[in-house]
Amino acid sequence: MYIPAHYQESDVAVLHALIRAHPLGAWVVGAADELVVNHIPFVIDASRGVRGTLIGHVARPNPVWKQLSRNGPSVVIFQGAESYISPSWYPTKHETGKAVPTWNYAVVHAHGIPVLFEDRDRLLAHVTALTTMAESAFESPWQVSDAPAEFIEAMLKGIVGIEIPIASLAGKWKASQNRPEADRRAVADALLQQGGDSSRAMAALVRQSLLPE
Amino acid sequence: MYIPAHYQESDVAVLHALIRAHPLGAWVVGAADELVVNHIPFVIDASRGVRGTLIGHVARPNPVWKQLSRNGPSVVIFQGAESYISPSWYPTKHETGKAVPTWNYAVVHAHGIPVLFEDRDRLLAHVTALTTMAESAFESPWQVSDAPAEFIEAMLKGIVGIEIPIASLAGKWKASQNRPEADRRAVADALLQQGGDSSRAMAALVRQSLLPE
Repeated sequence: MYIPAHYQESDVAVLHALIRAHPLGAWVVGAADELVVNHIPFVIDASRGVRGTLIGHVARPNPVWKQLSRNGPSVVIFQGAESYISPSWYPTKHETGKAVPTWNYAVVHAHGIPVLFEDRDRLLAHVTALTTMAESAFESPWQVSDAPAEFIEAMLKGIVGIEIPIASLAGKWKASQNRPEADRRAVADALLQQGGDSSRAMAALVRQSLLPE
Repeated sequence: MYIPAHYQESDVAVLHALIRAHPLGAWVVGAADELVVNHIPFVIDASRGVRGTLIGHVARPNPVWKQLSRNGPSVVIFQGAESYISPSWYPTKHETGKAVPTWNYAVVHAHGIPVLFEDRDRLLAHVTALTTMAESAFESPWQVSDAPAEFIEAMLKGIVGIEIPIASLAGKWKASQNRPEADRRAVADALLQQGGDSSRAMAALVRQSLLPE
């Protein structure tokens, strides 16, 4: 990914936080002259490896786990907030007119070679961790143990685990850092006025870039 | 992408509509043993080719246009609504307990071999089309001609056009179609109650699947 210096986010904790907030990754695998993409929720285990380890699973009928070539590249794309940015929002535009549209976004790319696992205990630990993460926002979280034991055993037989030790982790936080302060403030205000979850989240990122480091 | 039949969306007009609603694509290129990902807003030209043609551009300093291998594969991922689906929402769960969590999402994958273009008139036509699309929601849309002519000429020299005739177009609309009707209605209700733009959009997709075809 092309990342000009002012858009680069390299704090591993910040990148992991985006993954936790947007766990549905687009997992791309290069397999024999084609690119195979699947959308999978991942758990990030920050304790394993310098950049962490992603853990997910696919349904057994999904052919991707048979298509993985030994040491073939793979990348998981996690997409955060994104918004179109109109040049008409920039106060400085009114001085010179020298402005063009752009798109702001925050994304994380985790590159690494996937390793499969089919061990029953590891699969159970994984789906339990994934469920705990996803249900944490609810008042009465559903738990894997709420389902009949034999049903869960059958479900575990129907999935294949994927573990991706992250070899390289890149974050691009494109949040108007290339604009003068007055433009950034105006962009954040316009995004808030525009409304919508993604615009509001992007407004917060634009404002963050105004804080003293 | 693994698409069970009940999740497959193959109406080209529906797939193009998702691209227009979520034009920021994740463009993945397989280049010499690595996967290069860039996030780029695309215009879909439905009039060129059976599945349409995607048109975008990158900044000239972005190395991706020099990394493209002749006839190397590429895919653009467009991400629509997505939501975690809790099994505790299913009325049928209360009968047997046989339910597990899942993630719903609507995505489009456009596969095709990218072709570069650097012709000034085509680049101008492209950025004009992209701007018109992005500004269409505003009361006073910004236009490319609002900027000084010599500034625009300099900007056009700073970008490289990318055209991707779509060779294969896949849509996966994972919207609880595998659940009984009572569960689908309850999922849509729970998503609406949960709130948030993505949940609301997913609720609409789940409800659509309840309509007679």
